[in-house]
Amino acid sequence: MRRTVTTALTACFILALSAAAQDNRPTARQVIERIQKNVGVPWREPTVDTFKAGDPEARVTGVAVTMMATLDVLQRAAAGGKNLIITHEPTFYGHQDQTEDLARENDAVFAEKQALIKKHGLVVWRFHDHWHRRRPDGIQTGMARALGWEKYRNPANDSLYTLPAITVAVLASDLKKRLAIKTMRVVGDPALKVTKLALSPGAGGFAGHRRLLQRDDVEVLIIGEAPEWETVEYAADAVTAKRKKALIILGHIPSEQAGMDECARWMKTFVTEVPVEFVPANEPFWAPK
Amino acid sequence: MRRTVTTALTACFILALSAAAQDNRPTARQVIERIQKNVGVPWREPTVDTFKAGDPEARVTGVAVTMMATLDVLQRAAAGGKNLIITHEPTFYGHQDQTEDLARENDAVFAEKQALIKKHGLVVWRFHDHWHRRRPDGIQTGMARALGWEKYRNPANDSLYTLPAITVAVLASDLKKRLAIKTMRVVGDPALKVTKLALSPGAGGFAGHRRLLQRDDVEVLIIGEAPEWETVEYAADAVTAKRKKALIILGHIPSEQAGMDECARWMKTFVTEVPVEFVPANEPFWAPK
Repeated sequence: MRRTVTTALTACFILALSAAAQDNRPTARQVIERIQKNVGVPWREPTVDTFKAGDPEARVTGVAVTMMATLDVLQRAAAGGKNLIITHEPTFYGHQDQTEDLARENDAVFAEKQALIKKHGLVVWRFHDHWHRRRPDGIQTGMARALGWEKYRNPANDSLYTLPAITVAVLASDLKKRLAIKTMRVVGDPALKVTKLALSPGAGGFAGHRRLLQRDDVEVLIIGEAPEWETVEYAADAVTAKRKKALIILGHIPSEQAGMDECARWMKTFVTEVPVEFVPANEPFWAPK
Repeated sequence: MRRTVTTALTACFILALSAAAQDNRPTARQVIERIQKNVGVPWREPTVDTFKAGDPEARVTGVAVTMMATLDVLQRAAAGGKNLIITHEPTFYGHQDQTEDLARENDAVFAEKQALIKKHGLVVWRFHDHWHRRRPDGIQTGMARALGWEKYRNPANDSLYTLPAITVAVLASDLKKRLAIKTMRVVGDPALKVTKLALSPGAGGFAGHRRLLQRDDVEVLIIGEAPEWETVEYAADAVTAKRKKALIILGHIPSEQAGMDECARWMKTFVTEVPVEFVPANEPFWAPK
């Protein structure tokens, strides 16, 4: 009898320990609350930094930090045992991640992505606005580090850099190599010698791009992407007008990717109970011969 | 006295003849009225097909038809003695060609373009919506002709084509060569064999792109450009989901350029008093090594 009681008590103790270990893992919502507490800027609504899929109350098995929650990234996160995905860019193909049209159309690609999320109990949360609002901008910080440009950065304006003189052609090739980009596009004279650069990762929009190109301390604007009848036509006209300007288009993912690697490093300082891993999104493009 | 009268009369007669010759040249507005009369679809407001710069009552010295009224195109049109520019895409870097912000900012590129327009008395008119609304779509007709694809075109849907089986890699290289494109991007398996294509020139938007990629009779979607977090992420996910899909991104200008060559050919049939010439817009990009 006594032995039975002892055995039962031991089993209970082990179960209790196990439950405590379980409880030690934060929920997805708790991880996001830590982000909000640590990001260093007030949380402002409206924002796209919200849950996009899954149950915020789910216990986190691991965190996958990525530039874009593509189906490929979700598959790799799930295979690596991570159920919380922190993504800089949309999951469902639009800035607001609206899914009504896709659902109504019974879209097969959307259905596949939803099925994967459900099957693995994934939770997807977007971290865009406030990571950019952090001072200095978290994406800029990661990109500067990846490019080895910290020492060239303007302390008063975290998107401006002064480099030793370099031609646009060499600068573009260097960016291509350092960021391992397959498809890149440049507007301007390859032989132009430049020192003054602005880095505007992602799709900052024409107003922001133009205001950078208007500055005397910006000769080359480096961006992720832009509509070709906006920033691109403007840059081409600036070149035709013999202004000392060039535009380098990295592609959206490579232009911000290192900024989310930075985010993973930062999250590891306050998420310690579960693994936090940077899962790079693949550049979607290849260039035909 | 008689001789003086005769001389005076002769001078008057020559002046009158000259005036008649002058009058024979239509105004810019009259050329546009002929376009509206000939395009074969009702004129619908609101539309971006409006005058963007210059005096609509100016007599036309010649018509330059172009894909995009870049500063370079305007310079070449003026050098060729043509003062009416018919452009498919914007002149002032936005779909609505709004200039208030550029003017308020004293933007140097905008000022240069305005100065050139004023100096040469250029008139710029956009021909976008109704050239697409024409049946078949004027841009599609020109692109099909440039690609030698008329025989592959679906008679019931002018954006669909059925080609002899070809790999995505060979198709992309063929497009690059035929359209003389320097920078092109492809999403999908280069070795995928395809026959069913959709051509959506320009920037048709995610809803349209998605509806084409959803179709069983579309394996490859060929576009001008698209935001990378919309159509591009969707296409990449479709490929990851092992759907038989690919996306070819030509760049905005090469994707529609031949459609404005077609427009120049068409305009010559009803503008006969002054020369009508297609002025190609240059691809703005080059690819770094």
